[in-house]
Amino acid sequence: MSARHFVKYTFIKMEPAWRRLDAAEREQDKRELMAACEDFADGHLLQSLSLVGTRGDAELLLIAEAENLERIHELHVVLAQSGLMRWASTPYSFLGMRKSSEYSEDERGAPRAFEGKYVFVYPFVKSREWYALPAEQRWRIMQQHIEVGREYPGVDNHTTYSFGLDDQEFVVAFDTDDVGTFLDLVQRLRTTEASRYTVRDTPSFTCIRMSLTRALNALDGEPIGVVSEPLTAA
Amino acid sequence: MSARHFVKYTFIKMEPAWRRLDAAEREQDKRELMAACEDFADGHLLQSLSLVGTRGDAELLLIAEAENLERIHELHVVLAQSGLMRWASTPYSFLGMRKSSEYSEDERGAPRAFEGKYVFVYPFVKSREWYALPAEQRWRIMQQHIEVGREYPGVDNHTTYSFGLDDQEFVVAFDTDDVGTFLDLVQRLRTTEASRYTVRDTPSFTCIRMSLTRALNALDGEPIGVVSEPLTAA
Amino acid sequence: MSARHFVKYTFIKMEPAWRRLDAAEREQDKRELMAACEDFADGHLLQSLSLVGTRGDAELLLIAEAENLERIHELHVVLAQSGLMRWASTPYSFLGMRKSSEYSEDERGAPRAFEGKYVFVYPFVKSREWYALPAEQRWRIMQQHIEVGREYPGVDNHTTYSFGLDDQEFVVAFDTDDVGTFLDLVQRLRTTEASRYTVRDTPSFTCIRMSLTRALNALDGEPIGVVSEPLTAA
Amino acid sequence: MSARHFVKYTFIKMEPAWRRLDAAEREQDKRELMAACEDFADGHLLQSLSLVGTRGDAELLLIAEAENLERIHELHVVLAQSGLMRWASTPYSFLGMRKSSEYSEDERGAPRAFEGKYVFVYPFVKSREWYALPAEQRWRIMQQHIEVGREYPGVDNHTTYSFGLDDQEFVVAFDTDDVGTFLDLVQRLRTTEASRYTVRDTPSFTCIRMSLTRALNALDGEPIGVVSEPLTAA
Amino acid sequence: MSARHFVKYTFIKMEPAWRRLDAAEREQDKRELMAACEDFADGHLLQSLSLVGTRGDAELLLIAEAENLERIHELHVVLAQSGLMRWASTPYSFLGMRKSSEYSEDERGAPRAFEGKYVFVYPFVKSREWYALPAEQRWRIMQQHIEVGREYPGVDNHTTYSFGLDDQEFVVAFDTDDVGTFLDLVQRLRTTEASRYTVRDTPSFTCIRMSLTRALNALDGEPIGVVSEPLTAA
Repeated sequence: MSARHFVKYTFIKMEPAWRRLDAAEREQDKRELMAACEDFADGHLLQSLSLVGTRGDAELLLIAEAENLERIHELHVVLAQSGLMRWASTPYSFLGMRKSSEYSEDERGAPRAFEGKYVFVYPFVKSREWYALPAEQRWRIMQQHIEVGREYPGVDNHTTYSFGLDDQEFVVAFDTDDVGTFLDLVQRLRTTEASRYTVRDTPSFTCIRMSLTRALNALDGEPIGVVSEPLTAA
Repeated sequence: MSARHFVKYTFIKMEPAWRRLDAAEREQDKRELMAACEDFADGHLLQSLSLVGTRGDAELLLIAEAENLERIHELHVVLAQSGLMRWASTPYSFLGMRKSSEYSEDERGAPRAFEGKYVFVYPFVKSREWYALPAEQRWRIMQQHIEVGREYPGVDNHTTYSFGLDDQEFVVAFDTDDVGTFLDLVQRLRTTEASRYTVRDTPSFTCIRMSLTRALNALDGEPIGVVSEPLTAA
Repeated sequence: MSARHFVKYTFIKMEPAWRRLDAAEREQDKRELMAACEDFADGHLLQSLSLVGTRGDAELLLIAEAENLERIHELHVVLAQSGLMRWASTPYSFLGMRKSSEYSEDERGAPRAFEGKYVFVYPFVKSREWYALPAEQRWRIMQQHIEVGREYPGVDNHTTYSFGLDDQEFVVAFDTDDVGTFLDLVQRLRTTEASRYTVRDTPSFTCIRMSLTRALNALDGEPIGVVSEPLTAA
Repeated sequence: MSARHFVKYTFIKMEPAWRRLDAAEREQDKRELMAACEDFADGHLLQSLSLVGTRGDAELLLIAEAENLERIHELHVVLAQSGLMRWASTPYSFLGMRKSSEYSEDERGAPRAFEGKYVFVYPFVKSREWYALPAEQRWRIMQQHIEVGREYPGVDNHTTYSFGLDDQEFVVAFDTDDVGTFLDLVQRLRTTEASRYTVRDTPSFTCIRMSLTRALNALDGEPIGVVSEPLTAA
Repeated sequence: MSARHFVKYTFIKMEPAWRRLDAAEREQDKRELMAACEDFADGHLLQSLSLVGTRGDAELLLIAEAENLERIHELHVVLAQSGLMRWASTPYSFLGMRKSSEYSEDERGAPRAFEGKYVFVYPFVKSREWYALPAEQRWRIMQQHIEVGREYPGVDNHTTYSFGLDDQEFVVAFDTDDVGTFLDLVQRLRTTEASRYTVRDTPSFTCIRMSLTRALNALDGEPIGVVSEPLTAA
């Protein structure tokens, strides 16, 4: 029997001052972070996503999966040693663990990469009233919820568990190639009975999956050509 | 059939330290942001608004519309490369998508610019009790709400949808030329039945629509002549 | 018919680093802010108050009144150009508009200066249950509230409206020469029926009205003579 | 008849950067703050307490008492002029006023110093349901509360009033020589009827009363001898 | 009879700027913190844990136990003198006191070290409805809660009390060698009756117990070898 894996969501934001360094220094900083990630990715699942344009409070998301906390710890020790993290903050961080749902036959213990172009992530907490319901009633309510989800087959669920490990109960994550369909699904789910037991489902992150190289290059760059007219003439 | 568009609200605030740079450097920083915007505006809707004087926590609002998230992402990559964003933060950010309302015949999918002198924006969340009501009851309640709105024809609604994409359910936006009428409308709407299902409608931003040149020049400048009497004599 | 006026509350706090600049530079910074204010005050109501000693998160309050948002905007553009704002933040900002109350015969549309030595300000939001009450019941409840206020004639109300313009519904403001009487009034009002419908009435600011020169000089200065005994001897 | 006095709680935290200055500069900064305090303490009650070790967000508490707001204002003007406040923030600030309780015969108007070794402070807000109860019922409930307090005679109450003056209704403060007894009292009071009407009683500060010299010297100092083994050998 | 002991949880986070100092300076900073800890640990319980990888807002946790507040204060005075704290913040701080539970026969007054590989910590507040229940009912409800806990013998409880001393009522802490079992226990406890009376149980910290040397070395280091391909070629 294999152990349940940990999935770590680490959100990174650069200090504006980093963008004031010269290009060679920034290039070196990014290559050091890249080296730290490549070292971990040799044997572990590590995915990179960009939030540039979708959020104002985070720019890069790394999602790392490992068989124990020590390996997650080591990855972040090495990340912190990279030049990039000397100019970055970690505004959000979610620690989850794979676990099969009591409401579904689906096996959720195995490592599984995100494959859609877009990933949606939010921390999730249910009310204590929910947990006070009889197990059969919770089962029935969740079946309705799951059936609505099945009507949107292009949206795939990657939820992990955080009870006692982090501030939320679940790290809910979905991937899809079609943002509009995901929006329609979430709006539709508002009317299910399960929805009434939600206490917290924010912040809610829209992430664009891309190579780490591309996600890192989205953090900085040189300005494009400037306008010809001086502003003070306006 | 054309795709539903994304509408992105990006709020910008300068670090006070930026105002301590010399005028030529600030001019260059603003021209670089302007170039980034002009590049995007060639083919996309991009509007600029100033919050100088109406808020303490944001100074400039850019509202960008595009057919997919990649184009929104690219705009913000290029914005981040401008000198201005090396001294700025993004205190608020709202991502919405156009979608027709289930409570109205109005077509809301098409790109549409703000035309009023003033734009009011706030993130909006309704209670789960609202979504638990039967669809017909929600329809009836919203008709009353819409009818009140019709009594104030000078106020135009530009709401977009954020379910699952961002922390709010809707990005509510109105434009008008008459601030007092808008205030009266909002106060009047407090007494409608729909109002009881509001969970969140803040922060609420009053924005002044103006050219990007003017909005950028509102961020800095040289001090006007000083008083003749020394303060210490007072 | 004259237009309803805007009243803007702008709270300012200096970065501690500003106090490390030399005295001449700080004097120049204050004179530039003073010049910006004098320019506006020539034709508009502008009042200055100090929060040094009453709050930890704000030091100076400017209350500006103008006939339109553009004039409020321009004032803050010029304020931002002053040296002082290059070392300051704006931790709070309230935008209100004059409007007569539906519960009182008093005319509230005309510009009116604070005259008491002390001014108390807080953003105010009522519950949606309040707005769901019949208008006559709200009238009756407010009459009781107003009658209690009349028992404290030394306290004068300067409330303005913010529905849809800012995060609160009202900017409540009182002035008086007698702080203890104001405290007694507020405690007494807790037992009125109207009080039960309050959702938010904080932060609550105690402000000391004074000339801008005096309020600016309260922001900095040179240390007084030091103790003779070295601390390390203690 | 003497006027009711103001009691001001000012919490101070040093920027970490201050600890990087050389020792002579820090000594001078502390002596300037000391001089500002001595000036006020000549004729007014001023007490100093340390939070080093009990909180992470505040290090020094000054409790000042004066007959009017102007004197409190002046103290803070002079404090801000000291070198120490050029490297400090004021994370918390509570303004209260002495007033006798409607539920007790005890005279609370007179200035009174803390005498216990430990002082516990928190801002306190009661629910609007509390204020809606008939006065006799509130009296009865408070008598039970007061009787429980009397069983712990080593704990002394120094509560002041903040209605309308600050964000809380009361600044609750106790002093004692015995922390464990105070903890037992607070836990015991949770089961009284009065406790059900509490809306807010945090943040809750444990403060150690000591001379200003000692409290200031607790803010900095030179490191003690280092370990002999290099860390990298571990 | 020995006095009840204090247990202090101090969470530390380095400023990113610290990682930009040269290696010798960082080594010296860490050795000074180490010396401060060794001094205290000679006669007192002091444990070190790392949060690198499990949280984004804290990196190092020190848990110190002492017989009085003065000794806790002195430890933190000396910590603040170390080079490390000149570049660090204390984002969280919990002060607790040992006390036997009214719901258990277990003796909880004696100092006791964490022994599991992982420690889970969160501040805990129960609702006032809980405290309004008759003591016998609370006893009965807690017995069910305790029985569930006994089914997970590998998880050990180290809860201390904070009533009136800090913002929470309890500092709840568990240690275990098996993270998955702890997660399962916490999820299982959601369905107990006791769970319905929880008001606050976040933030929730997952901590890895390790030597102070190892925990300090996890804070910084030199970057590993960089990738060969320049990023700009991607």
